[in-house]
Amino acid sequence: MALSSSHLLGLEGVPAEDITMILDTAEHLKAILDRPIPKVPTLRGLTVVNLFFEASTRTRISFELAEKRLSADTVNFASSTSSVKKGETLRDTVRNIEAMKINMIVVRHSAAGVPYFLTQCTDANIINAGDGRHEHPTQALLDMMTLREKWDSLAGKKVAIIGDVKHSRVAGSNIRGLLTMGADVTLCGPKTLLPPGIEELGVNISYDLDETIAWADALNVLRIQLERQQKGLFPSIREYHAEFGITRERIERAKKEIIIMHPGPINRGVELDSDVADSDASIILDQVTNGVAVRMAVLVLLSGIDSVSE
Amino acid sequence: MALSSSHLLGLEGVPAEDITMILDTAEHLKAILDRPIPKVPTLRGLTVVNLFFEASTRTRISFELAEKRLSADTVNFASSTSSVKKGETLRDTVRNIEAMKINMIVVRHSAAGVPYFLTQCTDANIINAGDGRHEHPTQALLDMMTLREKWDSLAGKKVAIIGDVKHSRVAGSNIRGLLTMGADVTLCGPKTLLPPGIEELGVNISYDLDETIAWADALNVLRIQLERQQKGLFPSIREYHAEFGITRERIERAKKEIIIMHPGPINRGVELDSDVADSDASIILDQVTNGVAVRMAVLVLLSGIDSVSE
Amino acid sequence: MALSSSHLLGLEGVPAEDITMILDTAEHLKAILDRPIPKVPTLRGLTVVNLFFEASTRTRISFELAEKRLSADTVNFASSTSSVKKGETLRDTVRNIEAMKINMIVVRHSAAGVPYFLTQCTDANIINAGDGRHEHPTQALLDMMTLREKWDSLAGKKVAIIGDVKHSRVAGSNIRGLLTMGADVTLCGPKTLLPPGIEELGVNISYDLDETIAWADALNVLRIQLERQQKGLFPSIREYHAEFGITRERIERAKKEIIIMHPGPINRGVELDSDVADSDASIILDQVTNGVAVRMAVLVLLSGIDSVSE
Repeated sequence: MALSSSHLLGLEGVPAEDITMILDTAEHLKAILDRPIPKVPTLRGLTVVNLFFEASTRTRISFELAEKRLSADTVNFASSTSSVKKGETLRDTVRNIEAMKINMIVVRHSAAGVPYFLTQCTDANIINAGDGRHEHPTQALLDMMTLREKWDSLAGKKVAIIGDVKHSRVAGSNIRGLLTMGADVTLCGPKTLLPPGIEELGVNISYDLDETIAWADALNVLRIQLERQQKGLFPSIREYHAEFGITRERIERAKKEIIIMHPGPINRGVELDSDVADSDASIILDQVTNGVAVRMAVLVLLSGIDSVSE
Repeated sequence: MALSSSHLLGLEGVPAEDITMILDTAEHLKAILDRPIPKVPTLRGLTVVNLFFEASTRTRISFELAEKRLSADTVNFASSTSSVKKGETLRDTVRNIEAMKINMIVVRHSAAGVPYFLTQCTDANIINAGDGRHEHPTQALLDMMTLREKWDSLAGKKVAIIGDVKHSRVAGSNIRGLLTMGADVTLCGPKTLLPPGIEELGVNISYDLDETIAWADALNVLRIQLERQQKGLFPSIREYHAEFGITRERIERAKKEIIIMHPGPINRGVELDSDVADSDASIILDQVTNGVAVRMAVLVLLSGIDSVSE
Repeated sequence: MALSSSHLLGLEGVPAEDITMILDTAEHLKAILDRPIPKVPTLRGLTVVNLFFEASTRTRISFELAEKRLSADTVNFASSTSSVKKGETLRDTVRNIEAMKINMIVVRHSAAGVPYFLTQCTDANIINAGDGRHEHPTQALLDMMTLREKWDSLAGKKVAIIGDVKHSRVAGSNIRGLLTMGADVTLCGPKTLLPPGIEELGVNISYDLDETIAWADALNVLRIQLERQQKGLFPSIREYHAEFGITRERIERAKKEIIIMHPGPINRGVELDSDVADSDASIILDQVTNGVAVRMAVLVLLSGIDSVSE
């Protein structure tokens, strides 16, 4: 049982077999999380460094829980207290950490490509926890795992990604993963927030939310960065909500079941209304739960350990 | 063996039987802390999240040590690096953390009522580690445990709480716990720092420190927040010390044994002089030691686990 | 098997037997770090507090890994989130932490003498992780361990310490340790960065880098604090590099093998050129690896535990 790469840098180029193997392993591990003692000794004695150059709550905690439930030792490294401040190069930082005999690095950085760069300086397994606007592969994997729990297979299913696709690494990874798994993808948002030429990847583009809802089996609603507004990318929060906010009225107008997803944290009443976020159609909290299982799966599969000890 | 609630939000309304059960369990656990290996596997596999929205050293470390000595997995969450900054609601933050399958949340927040609010959004056991000016129940429990070590029983004993009662959650919890356990309580401080109407709880009020010392078996000396002075609540540090500072002369004048307590950190020479803080009458460091045992007891009893595995 | 002190405050006055015992133990532990599961239960149940009053990445992570690989429980304490802010005395902070029944304190502080001061307030074993410009003993121990791997013995070997000796605790500890172990030491740097009178310790002084390189078997190149320049201690980075920067040309001119060391983080192109730092003569990453082993050895030997359980 092995993935075709010893790193998880993104979902670009990751074959469907690898994605399926991760999701199958995650499902198996999720059952362990429901036990009274949700812990296995699989990664006992391995050390995982969480190298977060950007502030993060949920992703960092989700990885840390995944690591602890696999009995790995964890070390947290936040850039604010680090020698990065002292002008050390990223390469030196990472080679130093590696020289301490650690096994895996989970990295988040504001610059796209940093996880790839790390693979060039160290032998540790690298897991991308978000790099710039590029990819956030474990988020897309947990999204796909949660959809698969509803549908069994993603093939032929219609997933719409709504909002600020242009600045979203969540969208970046979801588009690649969903297309690989045979889903149809539509990107919907204001023109200023959809990257030009993106349709070449094989996705549909729409500027009309109602049309998109009518088409979709599931909506993955992206978080709007409120500071984008100041840069003139959308006129006002009120207007954004009027055109692209997901409301109960809009969902009901479609007269069918539509799954609602959001990577969090939600701006309630902006990109997503509370009654939709908290409705039965929402699988937002399942996404969070599955995040831990997916990250456990990635850690186990990259570690090269053959099976989950129990 | 079970408490009457699955949360510890405060000592208001907590029956004497519950308090006794916590203190008895803490005494038993304290013996374990004196072993060469002060660790038991009781909470192995359970995850406790320390959710601190206010800076804290001693309380956070005390809880973290309690959790680790019970073999729980711990995750620390400090608001400064969190998505709270990104405008997420508290309810969403907590429901997300819960969705990661954690078992208990230890919460400190500047707003009274936050621990109660959390019980409305999650099934995890909630432990209040201090909420606004409201309650800080584990502090009062460790205070009572330390007094019980001296006295066997709290019934009929005279405890005076000195200083800024108005802004003190430590006082809030001590008043409630001590009265429940049958102690007599006097609050003593400047009028501006005693909440009006507080005598309705069944406590005595005094503005005369010497009179209070003459009455008391123990003094619980509260920390003065030096910034209160700027708000005109007391005229100057020198004057506060002259009227309400605990000095050796004052204690000696009473010609009897008086136990000295302080929740820390001490402003030496302001509310409490160094020779009193470090005298044989002081049980301040016992309070700190007992803090770990009391928090272990609360964690075990709320977990629903029947007995301390050894 | 015991050291002559129950603390490691510095290498001043530490006998050669103690240093040898630490390095021998570290070598033994290093072998454990190369196992698939690099973890032993030696310190299980002991609690180590990492008390860092100065920001640190590599030293803090190195200690934390050492502690975790020995199965100790660890608690991190950073001054920025602590009650130090609330005006508590250092003595109270430490006595409080000790009252929670912890076993060892690893301390870093900007003031020389703080580790010694802590031994006066607590019974815990104190390990100095760097105090002001005074000492950083585990750094010197790891430097000596790495040199010993090359040479078997330090006696009669020629080690030059290059750069800002005056402000360097790394230099402070290396000078003492190397002299104790019988090495010859030369300090080389601009006059403004060499402390007057230091030759009384028994070291040579040189202001000529080429002469020093011609003499030396190994160069320990100190990090230049770039902010020193503003204080007029050296004229410019360019000029510093011209006079005291280690370049390939300079090393090649010596026509012999010279070992290159640096405590990190490196200012590449200032005190040390990249092609030298990354050459075969450099043992900089071995220093980092050995740092974990040396710290494990110090922790085990100070704990009073007789042997490394495996």
